[in-house]
Amino acid sequence: MDDDTGTIPRQADFSAWYNEVLWRAEIMDVRYPVKGLYVWFPYGFGIRKRVYGILRELLDRDHEETLFPLLIPEHEFMKEAEHIKGFEDEVYWVTHGGLSPLDMKLALRPTSETAIYPMYSLWVRSHADLPLKLYQVVNTFRYETKHTRPLIRLREITSFKEAHTVHETWEDAAAQVEDAVARYREFYDRLGIPVLVSRRPDWDKFPGADYTIAVDCVMPDGRTLQIGTVHHLGDHFSRTFSISYEDREGEQRLAHQTCYGISERCMAALIAVHGDDRGLVLPPEVAPVQVVVVPIIVGKRGDEVLEASRQLTDDLAAAGIRVKLDDRDLRPGAKYYHWELRGVPVRLELGPRDLDSNVSTGVLRTGGVKRAVPLSEAPRSVRELLEEVARDLRASADARLAGAVASASSMNDLAQVLERGVAIVNWCGGQPCADRIEEVTGGAVLGVEIRSDLVTQDEGVCIACGKPGTTALIGRSY
Amino acid sequence: MDDDTGTIPRQADFSAWYNEVLWRAEIMDVRYPVKGLYVWFPYGFGIRKRVYGILRELLDRDHEETLFPLLIPEHEFMKEAEHIKGFEDEVYWVTHGGLSPLDMKLALRPTSETAIYPMYSLWVRSHADLPLKLYQVVNTFRYETKHTRPLIRLREITSFKEAHTVHETWEDAAAQVEDAVARYREFYDRLGIPVLVSRRPDWDKFPGADYTIAVDCVMPDGRTLQIGTVHHLGDHFSRTFSISYEDREGEQRLAHQTCYGISERCMAALIAVHGDDRGLVLPPEVAPVQVVVVPIIVGKRGDEVLEASRQLTDDLAAAGIRVKLDDRDLRPGAKYYHWELRGVPVRLELGPRDLDSNVSTGVLRTGGVKRAVPLSEAPRSVRELLEEVARDLRASADARLAGAVASASSMNDLAQVLERGVAIVNWCGGQPCADRIEEVTGGAVLGVEIRSDLVTQDEGVCIACGKPGTTALIGRSY
Repeated sequence: MDDDTGTIPRQADFSAWYNEVLWRAEIMDVRYPVKGLYVWFPYGFGIRKRVYGILRELLDRDHEETLFPLLIPEHEFMKEAEHIKGFEDEVYWVTHGGLSPLDMKLALRPTSETAIYPMYSLWVRSHADLPLKLYQVVNTFRYETKHTRPLIRLREITSFKEAHTVHETWEDAAAQVEDAVARYREFYDRLGIPVLVSRRPDWDKFPGADYTIAVDCVMPDGRTLQIGTVHHLGDHFSRTFSISYEDREGEQRLAHQTCYGISERCMAALIAVHGDDRGLVLPPEVAPVQVVVVPIIVGKRGDEVLEASRQLTDDLAAAGIRVKLDDRDLRPGAKYYHWELRGVPVRLELGPRDLDSNVSTGVLRTGGVKRAVPLSEAPRSVRELLEEVARDLRASADARLAGAVASASSMNDLAQVLERGVAIVNWCGGQPCADRIEEVTGGAVLGVEIRSDLVTQDEGVCIACGKPGTTALIGRSY
Repeated sequence: MDDDTGTIPRQADFSAWYNEVLWRAEIMDVRYPVKGLYVWFPYGFGIRKRVYGILRELLDRDHEETLFPLLIPEHEFMKEAEHIKGFEDEVYWVTHGGLSPLDMKLALRPTSETAIYPMYSLWVRSHADLPLKLYQVVNTFRYETKHTRPLIRLREITSFKEAHTVHETWEDAAAQVEDAVARYREFYDRLGIPVLVSRRPDWDKFPGADYTIAVDCVMPDGRTLQIGTVHHLGDHFSRTFSISYEDREGEQRLAHQTCYGISERCMAALIAVHGDDRGLVLPPEVAPVQVVVVPIIVGKRGDEVLEASRQLTDDLAAAGIRVKLDDRDLRPGAKYYHWELRGVPVRLELGPRDLDSNVSTGVLRTGGVKRAVPLSEAPRSVRELLEEVARDLRASADARLAGAVASASSMNDLAQVLERGVAIVNWCGGQPCADRIEEVTGGAVLGVEIRSDLVTQDEGVCIACGKPGTTALIGRSY
């Protein structure tokens, strides 16, 4: 699985870079014999495991994890009219069991509302059962006819975290939406990924929702990637699936619901936002290997150096740091290249001269800064280096996002801003103007009510029609 | 989801007991609107998470976790003749994407050989790539036409752990088989579940394997449950999928393979083997709640008792023990019933009299033994109680298995032994005799070369034909 020869494309050529890094850094293999389905390499899976570990940790505070079936019977799937319309073109159908046709067609879940809510209807009885907050991490399916791309647009989403909550009132559900948005921000904060949060226009909300709040990041090519959505479902689904409760006065009332999800696009964001021309750059918290120790064996002191490298590795491992000793018979340069490509946050070089000074030379994956690590207190010193990498990562990502967001007050301006990032404009809120913006500039209205330190919510004339408008986010999205 | 009224059936009426406990102890909801598909309640999922955590921990020692697609293209699935024969009646087929028929039918994996081995063919190049040991935990599908039963016979196996290894020689693969068997033994040891390991007769091996070693447990009704299998695949699949490597002499050679799996049947075993007339009994290591604190509030000292109960709960939680304070407004008896049903290993009662002696009264779920727990050193004392529960569990399960295994030297004997357990007989190895045994007694030959302290491998005349035979295990299986 390992190919350490040749260089990778520059990140400026994002598509080529992305494909090459996924393969060469052993994240995913794209050679599975069905379009849109990919295989996780163990190294990529190791990152995924830690990323979803964070997500679970954040949700476990007040949600419970559960697991519902993949297969949804046609009659349940077809109950909610708007929902069907949103998904009917992209649902996979199971029609045969063994050699016989099934009595009832079964959908592979594209998302689980219609699998979960019939059970919620049985589980929710009284206000005392509410709020109900469950989540699951599952595989979901979309028959994508557009160009597929690993982690971004797939036919099997292998890692969809979806939460589904039930509340007494519309207001309670609205508060949950805010809570979920805050939780998602925290998640991306832990990964060092700055995000833009906004309310999607009505025509772009989840099929069957009152409104949708979305989380976007900006990719190196300036296009946005939707990496999380939170939906206020009102009582649309509770009406359809009869989810009602007895309130404090003994009256039966319809419940109000929310749902919110994050898919493996969070992994695409992690890879793209932090990566550089040498490959992956991983936040220490999710790196399968946090530190690699490379012995520099020159002259006669090989054994001594190797012995000290083993000791250093053992000391770090004993302190709970994920460390690997690279004692392969390769020149140091090839090893540096190998681990830089895979995004290992800190490299420790140890040669005869280091040994004489009782240090190892620490090299940060972010920027290549070198720092002496005293062998006598390596774990403490390495922990500081890992924290420095995490800070560096975040600072670079913040700076890149700040550089990618700009205001535009004319269609010309807008087209230029969209060449390299996302634009802040004023917009009247009308779909005809959104359509015109897209036609002229290629950018779509991503959302309004933008929550970001980089954007001041304001009023002004619509960039398309000149009527009164408010601040909106425009971007070209994946 | 909670129904604490009425008693549950006695465990002697196993089928009724099992269904009722799954529901009342909140393991699974069977009301999902498709036959053979079930919903994990959060409490059941909490047990599952810990059980699979142990399995992952054991495999992570020298395997790597990965993830392959669910959907297998028909042309790959159909490549290995024996394998198809074994599965063709029970494969679900996806035939439509959206409203259109697919160009290529896609199978929902019943197991992943045909998804994984085309990739192994690309990954394995040289002896230096071997051994390759990967595993995944995934959902798999079987269109079961027999009676379905939660965790035991399902259409969606939600939690299949499957490992797939590649080796240079047949002997290396055989050694891996032994290694996997040892790992599975260790897994069931951790869960306190005694097992019988044997080699399945040829007609009962995995489709496409040289031989299959199986792990069975004995359920309370005396029937056996297959809870793990390890297959030596020889070079059958490597031939079909072209998995070859360059050996040390530069020659191309076919690789040899093994695969081995454990499904959520391990959860069925956990529930059935340890459960009793009051419900679940959980090994502390996998119990979502290890200790419940029940304040006994009588007379005027309610506040004082509650305060001390909170302190006790906090002390235990701070020591990393999974503890819950049950301060609901219910009588203590109802709370005992609630937590016993859910298998919580230790209950701590705390009333005014306990408080006067600075103790809490610990009650073990196994057998109801009571022990004083000094409040000043509650964590240490409770840890001892949890260890006692784990020992008790294991001892009872061992005793029950010993009571369920007996020798039989005639068909009459055999039929009697099978009424309440499994039998050890001599058998010539021929299928006609196995068929006759089944016809006359209802018991099947489970395996030979039995590995168990309870069974001495020996020789003697075949119970069916009187010709020379060796020790074999006979049982009625799920």
